[in-house]
Amino acid sequence: MIDLEQLHDCYVTTTSKIVLLVVDGLGGLAHPDTGRSELETANLPNLDAMARESACGLTTPVLPGVAPGSGPGHLALFGYDPLKYVIGRGALEALGIEVELQPGDVAARGNFCTVDPAGNLVDRRAGRIPTELSAPLCARLDQIELPGVQVDVFPVQDYRFVLRLRGAGLSEALTETDPQITGVPAQSVRPLEPDAEKTAGLVNDFVSQAGKLLAEEERGNMVLLRGWAQLPSLPPMGQVYRLNPAGIAAYPMYRGLATVANMKIIPTGRTFSDEVDTLHQEYANHDFFFIHYKPADAAGEDGDFDAKVRTLEDLDPLIPRIRELEPDVFMVAGDHATPAIMAAHSWHPVPFMLHSKLTRGEGVPAFNEKDCGRGSIGSIPATNVMLLALSHSGKLTKYGP
Amino acid sequence: MIDLEQLHDCYVTTTSKIVLLVVDGLGGLAHPDTGRSELETANLPNLDAMARESACGLTTPVLPGVAPGSGPGHLALFGYDPLKYVIGRGALEALGIEVELQPGDVAARGNFCTVDPAGNLVDRRAGRIPTELSAPLCARLDQIELPGVQVDVFPVQDYRFVLRLRGAGLSEALTETDPQITGVPAQSVRPLEPDAEKTAGLVNDFVSQAGKLLAEEERGNMVLLRGWAQLPSLPPMGQVYRLNPAGIAAYPMYRGLATVANMKIIPTGRTFSDEVDTLHQEYANHDFFFIHYKPADAAGEDGDFDAKVRTLEDLDPLIPRIRELEPDVFMVAGDHATPAIMAAHSWHPVPFMLHSKLTRGEGVPAFNEKDCGRGSIGSIPATNVMLLALSHSGKLTKYGP
Repeated sequence: MIDLEQLHDCYVTTTSKIVLLVVDGLGGLAHPDTGRSELETANLPNLDAMARESACGLTTPVLPGVAPGSGPGHLALFGYDPLKYVIGRGALEALGIEVELQPGDVAARGNFCTVDPAGNLVDRRAGRIPTELSAPLCARLDQIELPGVQVDVFPVQDYRFVLRLRGAGLSEALTETDPQITGVPAQSVRPLEPDAEKTAGLVNDFVSQAGKLLAEEERGNMVLLRGWAQLPSLPPMGQVYRLNPAGIAAYPMYRGLATVANMKIIPTGRTFSDEVDTLHQEYANHDFFFIHYKPADAAGEDGDFDAKVRTLEDLDPLIPRIRELEPDVFMVAGDHATPAIMAAHSWHPVPFMLHSKLTRGEGVPAFNEKDCGRGSIGSIPATNVMLLALSHSGKLTKYGP
Repeated sequence: MIDLEQLHDCYVTTTSKIVLLVVDGLGGLAHPDTGRSELETANLPNLDAMARESACGLTTPVLPGVAPGSGPGHLALFGYDPLKYVIGRGALEALGIEVELQPGDVAARGNFCTVDPAGNLVDRRAGRIPTELSAPLCARLDQIELPGVQVDVFPVQDYRFVLRLRGAGLSEALTETDPQITGVPAQSVRPLEPDAEKTAGLVNDFVSQAGKLLAEEERGNMVLLRGWAQLPSLPPMGQVYRLNPAGIAAYPMYRGLATVANMKIIPTGRTFSDEVDTLHQEYANHDFFFIHYKPADAAGEDGDFDAKVRTLEDLDPLIPRIRELEPDVFMVAGDHATPAIMAAHSWHPVPFMLHSKLTRGEGVPAFNEKDCGRGSIGSIPATNVMLLALSHSGKLTKYGP
């Protein structure tokens, strides 16, 4: 909805404050033994009390039935249609290790592999060499020079790295080099459109130089490259909504997503409690805050129902510390569900609540999937969440005469 | 949905009758002392009885979080996407005083102002001169002649008027002349696109002539012009839906909106009771009736909760007088919510019910925000209301083989 030009004249800057708490992987499914979801199982006095004073609903990140990754899940909550604005794998990997991407940069997910003297792949992951071994190899690749292009190689973890190319006229429309099988050579990169020919040539030059620089390595004597991606060109959140938005996230991936939406990133500590401290310290300086809680998703992805319940119970006591700031709008949302019984992201609608002076409760007794579904907001696309936030805080004025 | 060409072959003309009652500003919010909304507070035996026999739901006029003006709110109920079909301020002002607008006409909101001998604004509203004083000034401006264009000036109220230009090749893409401050001259109109150059020249000529005609006035010796607008080109409701639609509204603005949708306007009296009389008299002559109830919105805009409750209680006894006509479909809808506690239009989903032989009730006990939210229709875009009306009256046949 951020790109709905008809509404652009309706956004106004005010002194009111919006806090969007994204609980990663918030939604869940019933445990087969109890019939209760993670949220229904957890003891959440503060979230439940807030639900009783809020407007409640369910958000669908992309479309019913579509489980999103972190990128689409967050972009939707910020108001960007996740089917229109796509963050490619290479770009998301770069954001995840806080590699800065500028418009036009091309990023790829790289990994070290091992080839035999004939150049055929014998191990597509180079024996999963640890970061201690791969980081010096990355430093070596970082020395590669290509004409007219800045080349940077950043270690990720173990055998994985990010390649970033910076220069004019680069394209992400390239094939991948990983043949997905062993016993054959890595493939050359081919352009998928005429404008990508120059980039393809540069990348093949990079691979050729990499092979020479790594030739003496026993494990990791070649590289594979895939997930070519440039940043989508996103309408800046601050400019469109006339906000001064800030992001607070302990994990780099989410700082990266906030950067893509053009939020200012506020440095914080490693825990959610640190994030809430940061929110308190910076509260005067911005009118919109995205604050991110990671542990629920991690426990859900591990398939650990009880652990996910505990992460929600760990979050609950920190809700009053946010509420004591008395934000004009305080929303608790999720980027997607991560039901522990699935051990994966899912497509299920995600509980959502919005607290403001204009919401006085609507008989929703608790913050969970079933009860939120009975709230006044109903089941809405996650891309509408920002419109609700802005209207409840007086920042979105009447549309049309 | 009216412009959904895939459905055009599905619309059929029948003898069945549809009545759409639009209660302006219908939806509300809970009173802080009682926790009950205006609809929940009011004693509405007839509306509640109808809800128990109807299909119920909630309608969203534009998007969640977007509060609409009267224009978008009504167009949506008639099936027009309010983000696609935009009625500009000048055009709506013209409709509000029943100035006829043809396709291509350009309308502006005008007002008299006062400038000093150097031409600098000293009062942007000319001391809010009353209509008795401004109407003769409008008559004077109405004499202005521009080459190839018909010029008409209509008094609105006090210092305000509508300017209508009629001719070939006119454009609404013009800047406004009001500088929003005093101490500086009114601005010349500039074209916002090349095609508007001719219109800009004509308007500047108008302003120059107006200044001469008004030069001797103590208050109101100059004009300001803003809100340039042409009518959007709307698919005619009668033609697309294969209906013979009529509008009955005591207030000119809503007659204007019905005209824009291509309904026939039936003259009526000043009260809703008059409107219902008109409905009875004309019932044989049309198959679709839009009938408008204004007082609920006015009380809501005044922020008077008790008055809004009374307007709903005033409406209720007239419901049986509509039902005794036994329309095949009788819908009660709102163009938007106007919660008294906000004293403004709001974005909240609006209660909706549809009564027909194919609806026999679904356990919704009363006509209000909470109970309608539990009805079978769920929460739908207001643009879908006409599809429900047409299908329940046998006028929308199966889509696709």
